[in-house]
Amino acid sequence: MANFDGPGFSMVDESWIQTKAIDIEPSTDFSPYLSRILEDCVWNGNRAIVFDVYWDVESVNTKSERPLSSVKLSTKNLCLFLRLPNQFSDNLKDLYRFFASKFVTFVGVQIEEDLVLLKENHGIVIRSYLEIGKLAAVARGTPIVEFLGARELAHKILSCDTSRLDSIQSKWDEAGGDDRLEAAAIEGWLIYNVYDQLQQ
Amino acid sequence: MANFDGPGFSMVDESWIQTKAIDIEPSTDFSPYLSRILEDCVWNGNRAIVFDVYWDVESVNTKSERPLSSVKLSTKNLCLFLRLPNQFSDNLKDLYRFFASKFVTFVGVQIEEDLVLLKENHGIVIRSYLEIGKLAAVARGTPIVEFLGARELAHKILSCDTSRLDSIQSKWDEAGGDDRLEAAAIEGWLIYNVYDQLQQ
Amino acid sequence: MANFDGPGFSMVDESWIQTKAIDIEPSTDFSPYLSRILEDCVWNGNRAIVFDVYWDVESVNTKSERPLSSVKLSTKNLCLFLRLPNQFSDNLKDLYRFFASKFVTFVGVQIEEDLVLLKENHGIVIRSYLEIGKLAAVARGTPIVEFLGARELAHKILSCDTSRLDSIQSKWDEAGGDDRLEAAAIEGWLIYNVYDQLQQ
Amino acid sequence: MANFDGPGFSMVDESWIQTKAIDIEPSTDFSPYLSRILEDCVWNGNRAIVFDVYWDVESVNTKSERPLSSVKLSTKNLCLFLRLPNQFSDNLKDLYRFFASKFVTFVGVQIEEDLVLLKENHGIVIRSYLEIGKLAAVARGTPIVEFLGARELAHKILSCDTSRLDSIQSKWDEAGGDDRLEAAAIEGWLIYNVYDQLQQ
Amino acid sequence: MANFDGPGFSMVDESWIQTKAIDIEPSTDFSPYLSRILEDCVWNGNRAIVFDVYWDVESVNTKSERPLSSVKLSTKNLCLFLRLPNQFSDNLKDLYRFFASKFVTFVGVQIEEDLVLLKENHGIVIRSYLEIGKLAAVARGTPIVEFLGARELAHKILSCDTSRLDSIQSKWDEAGGDDRLEAAAIEGWLIYNVYDQLQQ
Amino acid sequence: MANFDGPGFSMVDESWIQTKAIDIEPSTDFSPYLSRILEDCVWNGNRAIVFDVYWDVESVNTKSERPLSSVKLSTKNLCLFLRLPNQFSDNLKDLYRFFASKFVTFVGVQIEEDLVLLKENHGIVIRSYLEIGKLAAVARGTPIVEFLGARELAHKILSCDTSRLDSIQSKWDEAGGDDRLEAAAIEGWLIYNVYDQLQQ
Repeated sequence: MANFDGPGFSMVDESWIQTKAIDIEPSTDFSPYLSRILEDCVWNGNRAIVFDVYWDVESVNTKSERPLSSVKLSTKNLCLFLRLPNQFSDNLKDLYRFFASKFVTFVGVQIEEDLVLLKENHGIVIRSYLEIGKLAAVARGTPIVEFLGARELAHKILSCDTSRLDSIQSKWDEAGGDDRLEAAAIEGWLIYNVYDQLQQ
Repeated sequence: MANFDGPGFSMVDESWIQTKAIDIEPSTDFSPYLSRILEDCVWNGNRAIVFDVYWDVESVNTKSERPLSSVKLSTKNLCLFLRLPNQFSDNLKDLYRFFASKFVTFVGVQIEEDLVLLKENHGIVIRSYLEIGKLAAVARGTPIVEFLGARELAHKILSCDTSRLDSIQSKWDEAGGDDRLEAAAIEGWLIYNVYDQLQQ
Repeated sequence: MANFDGPGFSMVDESWIQTKAIDIEPSTDFSPYLSRILEDCVWNGNRAIVFDVYWDVESVNTKSERPLSSVKLSTKNLCLFLRLPNQFSDNLKDLYRFFASKFVTFVGVQIEEDLVLLKENHGIVIRSYLEIGKLAAVARGTPIVEFLGARELAHKILSCDTSRLDSIQSKWDEAGGDDRLEAAAIEGWLIYNVYDQLQQ
Repeated sequence: MANFDGPGFSMVDESWIQTKAIDIEPSTDFSPYLSRILEDCVWNGNRAIVFDVYWDVESVNTKSERPLSSVKLSTKNLCLFLRLPNQFSDNLKDLYRFFASKFVTFVGVQIEEDLVLLKENHGIVIRSYLEIGKLAAVARGTPIVEFLGARELAHKILSCDTSRLDSIQSKWDEAGGDDRLEAAAIEGWLIYNVYDQLQQ
Repeated sequence: MANFDGPGFSMVDESWIQTKAIDIEPSTDFSPYLSRILEDCVWNGNRAIVFDVYWDVESVNTKSERPLSSVKLSTKNLCLFLRLPNQFSDNLKDLYRFFASKFVTFVGVQIEEDLVLLKENHGIVIRSYLEIGKLAAVARGTPIVEFLGARELAHKILSCDTSRLDSIQSKWDEAGGDDRLEAAAIEGWLIYNVYDQLQQ
Repeated sequence: MANFDGPGFSMVDESWIQTKAIDIEPSTDFSPYLSRILEDCVWNGNRAIVFDVYWDVESVNTKSERPLSSVKLSTKNLCLFLRLPNQFSDNLKDLYRFFASKFVTFVGVQIEEDLVLLKENHGIVIRSYLEIGKLAAVARGTPIVEFLGARELAHKILSCDTSRLDSIQSKWDEAGGDDRLEAAAIEGWLIYNVYDQLQQ
């Protein structure tokens, strides 16, 4: 059974996010974690999985490839952080298959470029996705929110306290692994709640 | 005569969906099933066939090809699930020809990427299609529904009970073949009814 | 003189459509039929020719070519059905020249993909055309009609009886040549009348 | 001095169009005719030159080239019809230079494809142009006029008698050279007047 | 010090435009003239430089290259006309650098194609530009002005007397160098004033 | 600790901008300066970093490459000006990584072309950005501001005194290094304040 046995973090509304960070190696079977994410998503009632992707810029000057370095997946209660290997290995197909699912809507912030890069560099096509800023702009009639990052968007829509996130991100280079994981969890949770709010 | 002799499922409004799943081999003649789908569609009065396509990610890392692995076709009373072979065989042209028909409108959820992939990878051009979320968003004046998956879209438009679907999808990896077929049938039926509702 | 000596069909409003189906061979001179279509179009007062094109999927798997297999042209009183040869022959230029005319507006249903394929595969450019569903959607303020096929569109705009068409199309595989020609004539006539209606 | 010594035609409002048709050969100097068109355009007060282009479909099956076969240029009082040679000759640059002018607005009907073909096949870029149907649709709030040909558009905007044009175009294949020139002059005159009307 | 010692022209409102025409050769240092244009622009309060570009059609049939033949730059008081050499020479980089400036907004009429050609043929990217007709159409709610040339646009927005311009342009082939320069100056001045007017 | 020990400048509202200009060499570690920019941005409450990029036109005629020559980054209190080396060196990845951040929104004026060039020439993808003129045009209902440069945009939105900036930019070729840095700082500060204003 997939156990989110990484650190847990308390959000400003007292809710609790359980995390798991995995360094994927060719032998790592991380599919049970994806299954639990999916399960949590389905039972939370709005079928949203918040995601973010991170790119390796090491090889960027060659322009030939922009490899995906890590992926964050968040639901109401869980946050999964996957660090990908440099080399393609067969188990990554579990992730590709997961992204292709139409059971759920993949929700992200400023993801337009990411979607292009996912297809160009890895042949990954997320078929069911939502650029949340664009939707929020239309739904709220405030054009500026289309262009905001996760924290500012959440700030506008939820008006909740983000001082913990600010504190970590302002000293990012000095932040430790757990702090960074907490920031990832907070951002995921913020977007999840923005989406939940917009649904109503 | 094409016999939908797979399991039948009862929907939440007591209607009944008869299914058929076919593993296509070079010698399989599945065209009578397509004819019956077409016939059922024409007589149901709104000329809609709900479809979904599934892609094989096995060869995705090569980026050169994304083969279609299966296709779902749903009308008011029927659900046909076709599993395609790895190799192209001549009888697949019956499916290609079916998709090209302008007798009917092919209705799907989040199909934009699928249409691109169908043309790029298989040279299939569906000429008469409808992205139902986009239409629902305009027709109902609620932008968010454009970005929802099948279940959430149906939930918003039809407000019907989807607990059976939730139950199967939340435990997808453990679900058996019949459960998965039932989920496919339910999703098809939901979208069919969303379309029917929007027509009025 | 071009004689539309194929079967004639009575429409639901008692009007009469005279048809002609031609298998084009290198020596066939079908240009007088095009001239008569043009003449009928000009005198009918709205300068509309309804068209539909059909594609050969036999060679579709190679992706290199999608040959045009037949073309339907309809005016108020006439319906011409041209079956094209596999090989290009010089007389086809009469058809290409006809499509290039700006005397008339070529009216079709869900033709966007067809226009792309005509240019890509045959270098044919229809310069004056109308996607009638798109116009109907704007003119009537009902977005859904943009995505409908010919029969459903006509049903929405004209509310006329289409049972004869339904009857043929629901049993398409068993339909004989004359039945299929009648269906083609009915569809052409329906779209012609939709266009005529929208003009007013 | 450029003499429009071709036949003159009387329009339905008693105005007179003087025409000139020229078969361009390498030694033909047609630039004085372009100068007179320009001059007439400038003094007519709205700086509009109506144009239409015609394509040779003889070589269309090779798809590599679609040569321009003739060009029509109309102002308030003049109509110039240029038949182009098969081979490029240096004097054609006078025409290219003329099209590049920003002194005037080149006005056409359904010209979108023509502009693409002019650039693709001849490197001609008309920098100042107007698709008149699109403008008329916006200016009059009637979407359908965007998609009409010259005659129908004029009919909707000007409500003038077009029976002479109808008479020629309905028997196009049997029409003589002067009749065709008259039809060209009438179409040019109609569009000129539509533009003039929309300006007010 | 850059001296605009070409002919000066009086505009219809008694303002005065000082001109300079330069035939650029590899040794010509025209950058002081660009500096003075920039200076005049900054002090005129609206940071607008009106520009127009002219293309050489001599080599157009090869389709491989469309060289820029001359450039006009106008501010409130100055008009600079640069004739470019056939061969690239190092001093042209001063012009490229000038176009790249974001200090100012480059204002033009029907410039969409020109911007494409500048990038395609010379690698020049104007980053801060304004298609003035498009803006005028929105600002004034009159769609037609989007498609007008400089003179007609000015006529609609400023309603000023353009008889001098008309007089030169109607006899363009016979116009001398100074007359052409005056026409260039008048057009630049007209657009400058349109922009100034729209700012208010 | 990253010390912005370049000249400081007083803005018209008495606020103070501390600057730092760095000539990047392969051994330069400028990442602490980026960290301080980030930190300042996070604590300023609106998560905006104003940026501008400058292109080297030296190699522009070859069309094969348009290298980035310098980058300006501004927050409420800081302005960092980075001059890039001709050759790619490994430390530039710190800049690429910085641009990829979604913590913040990168705000610029007329950046559309710049974003294209950054990807085409350097493989840099800024995922979270805002073209501020476009937003201002929508937010204020004044279409013209979309097309203005930094100074004019600020002038329209903030109505503040820009005489110091005007003074430097009007004599740009004669301006010294410190004056140019001051101009950069003023422009950055202006845009920062425009963004701040639009947020409210």
